[in-house]
Amino acid sequence: MTDTPPLRVAIAGLGTVGAGTARLLAERASDLEKKCGRALRLGAVSSRDRTKDRGVSLGGIAWHDDAMALARDPNVDVVVELIGGSDGIARTLVEAALANGKHVVTANKALIAHHGAALAALAESKGVALQFEAAVAGGIPIVKAFKEGLAANGIKRVVGILNGTCNYILDQMQQTRRSFGDVLKEAQEKGYAEADPAFDVDGIDTAHKLAILTSLAYGTKPDIASVYIEGIRHITFDDIEYAQELGYRIKLLGIARPTEHGIEQRVHPCMVAASQPLGQIPGVYNAIETEGDFVGNALFEGRGAGAGPTASAVVADLIDIARGHITSPFGVKAAALTAIAPAPIDRHQGAYYMRIQALDKPGVLASVSTVFFEEGVSIESCLQRGHNPGEPVHLAIITHVTRESSMAKALERIAKLANIMESPHMIRIEPL
Amino acid sequence: MTDTPPLRVAIAGLGTVGAGTARLLAERASDLEKKCGRALRLGAVSSRDRTKDRGVSLGGIAWHDDAMALARDPNVDVVVELIGGSDGIARTLVEAALANGKHVVTANKALIAHHGAALAALAESKGVALQFEAAVAGGIPIVKAFKEGLAANGIKRVVGILNGTCNYILDQMQQTRRSFGDVLKEAQEKGYAEADPAFDVDGIDTAHKLAILTSLAYGTKPDIASVYIEGIRHITFDDIEYAQELGYRIKLLGIARPTEHGIEQRVHPCMVAASQPLGQIPGVYNAIETEGDFVGNALFEGRGAGAGPTASAVVADLIDIARGHITSPFGVKAAALTAIAPAPIDRHQGAYYMRIQALDKPGVLASVSTVFFEEGVSIESCLQRGHNPGEPVHLAIITHVTRESSMAKALERIAKLANIMESPHMIRIEPL
Repeated sequence: MTDTPPLRVAIAGLGTVGAGTARLLAERASDLEKKCGRALRLGAVSSRDRTKDRGVSLGGIAWHDDAMALARDPNVDVVVELIGGSDGIARTLVEAALANGKHVVTANKALIAHHGAALAALAESKGVALQFEAAVAGGIPIVKAFKEGLAANGIKRVVGILNGTCNYILDQMQQTRRSFGDVLKEAQEKGYAEADPAFDVDGIDTAHKLAILTSLAYGTKPDIASVYIEGIRHITFDDIEYAQELGYRIKLLGIARPTEHGIEQRVHPCMVAASQPLGQIPGVYNAIETEGDFVGNALFEGRGAGAGPTASAVVADLIDIARGHITSPFGVKAAALTAIAPAPIDRHQGAYYMRIQALDKPGVLASVSTVFFEEGVSIESCLQRGHNPGEPVHLAIITHVTRESSMAKALERIAKLANIMESPHMIRIEPL
Repeated sequence: MTDTPPLRVAIAGLGTVGAGTARLLAERASDLEKKCGRALRLGAVSSRDRTKDRGVSLGGIAWHDDAMALARDPNVDVVVELIGGSDGIARTLVEAALANGKHVVTANKALIAHHGAALAALAESKGVALQFEAAVAGGIPIVKAFKEGLAANGIKRVVGILNGTCNYILDQMQQTRRSFGDVLKEAQEKGYAEADPAFDVDGIDTAHKLAILTSLAYGTKPDIASVYIEGIRHITFDDIEYAQELGYRIKLLGIARPTEHGIEQRVHPCMVAASQPLGQIPGVYNAIETEGDFVGNALFEGRGAGAGPTASAVVADLIDIARGHITSPFGVKAAALTAIAPAPIDRHQGAYYMRIQALDKPGVLASVSTVFFEEGVSIESCLQRGHNPGEPVHLAIITHVTRESSMAKALERIAKLANIMESPHMIRIEPL
């Protein structure tokens, strides 16, 4: 069909995503050849377990127990790294493959968030591609959108629901009126959450993805260390219910935005208006909302994980490479990536939700209001649930826009007030 | 900063979009140079009116009264065609520019829908790019999504709100409880609708865009002649209100989908569940929902028109060209584009909404039900508004999934029944 030799692909790591990628390359081979003007040929894989049924025939493909063999194999043009982890074998493999002049496609957000700038420089020096569409928001082509489709714009903000596990848990807490712990347990049983859920529910996975999007949007080196990170473990069903009453939904967002103090990068639960698209993203879906100075608002929504969506993104990267479309990994030359000037979270300004549980004694609201007044935090609205005499009082307060530092001081003081039963719960409100 | 010579750009047509593109190229010049590794330099323009203030300095840029001069200018690498129209000067210019070995970027959906395959072949034979991101859904990078980001997938369907004017009119009809005519008049006064609104409200503009998306999704030649087209002029406020009562919104959709009879391409008002993302796209926004066999569902939403969003898309195309990323215009070689096997609308199967107005006489519902029964159309639900004695009866019926041909026969017979006051209104229901 064409005289151009096939692009010879090797996959390191044959878990769900690796097997899905192999299956996609096999099932859609003729269509892919039509689109690339050459075949995408899977020639080698590495995985320890040769016996597992992966739902795809791997006959005629070279097997290696050691992933590093792929980086040395002269019959490999592209190494697809699906091992994971910011360091260890994944990093060694990617470095060796690039150093040997092979293109690399990876779904590894931790690796790119931690070592993206150095790896980009290495790829560039060898004239090869380092592509990571699958590292952010699974099947949504958002890396390409920032590198290419929206590249003409100055980006005013990036706001994303980037972790399907957290979105599923928060969604289920609301829909089934259950606690975080209950829903997490169920998600683990269903395979939606890992046995060790920390990476997801503590916001680290979202932070990795946000750090990558920030680099793409602002031409900065990925700087995971400057991302403020707060997970969702402390979200209670009471918070979910108050949010609903107040017209909000609670979502774990990753947000990057230039401010007068530098670039803000924050990952934390947010109250988002229920009527806004991001307030309505269901279950395991991911979504990214952005605003460009020319394009205005744009929203991208799709599946953020799973074999199919991730394979779709990995193969999109392979198609680019097969077509010879090699862009600098972050859209500008690695040498032109700037160090981020981070805006610390205590310079953040926004509105806040706070909930306290207090003994049913006179004067609680007065003492809380006084603290807010003294710290310069202005209250927009206040909601107190009906309760029986003697039962604890739940009080939810929404503030006007104020400084994080003022809010932090107010919360610290409120926690120490008489009759307050637990540390106040605070959730930032994100206007979209 | 770089040794690569600038990409020399010429713009034909300095209306809102042309001026916006010139402004973007000027305002974001240094950032664009960083992203492309070379400058994007606007060197020539063509427009009749040299005196108009376009909000951007055009000093030092060659002016031509005749757009054709741009196609001949040896100092031009890319011609940006922003004149419009499927034939005439736009077509002549694009053909001449390609024939002279110049890249072409265009926002002209009519041109691509009518002559896309031939122009793609010409571009390929000359080894130049023909790019048209701005032709579909303005600032949303949806052409790139189908050509590249989602290219690994077999596409199960493409469903789009592709005309902001129609979406605005339908949205306003609902929100302000007014008639089509009233809202159209207001939209014209505000500049949201043309003095001659036919291209928009009769669905032609949507059909052009759909024909292009179909080609990108299915590797077929654009075939505007096989698109079934129905506009929104016949939508009444009663329909909008019934839709709302039944949990739907009325949207003008463009839909492409492979069926057992061939590829369906249809543009018509649809009832869409109010809870679905496409049911909630507001005002002048555009959105495209698609399903790929690997990626699953994906949704893209953004501004579909206007100087900023369109300029964003035009310049994204210029960035691709400056980077040397030249893909076949429809993602596969022009010679590989197949003729579409169109599925005619009368083979369509779906559920339907029908509304009739009848004299308040006994037996109307019985005679309507009998027709449906005899034509094999099964009724799912039926809604009759309360009315005063002697006033006309409004009856809304939702059918189960049935054949378009059966529904058409039923409607024809119902129109002729005794006591029916006007031809029945029919709107197709689109499950998403």
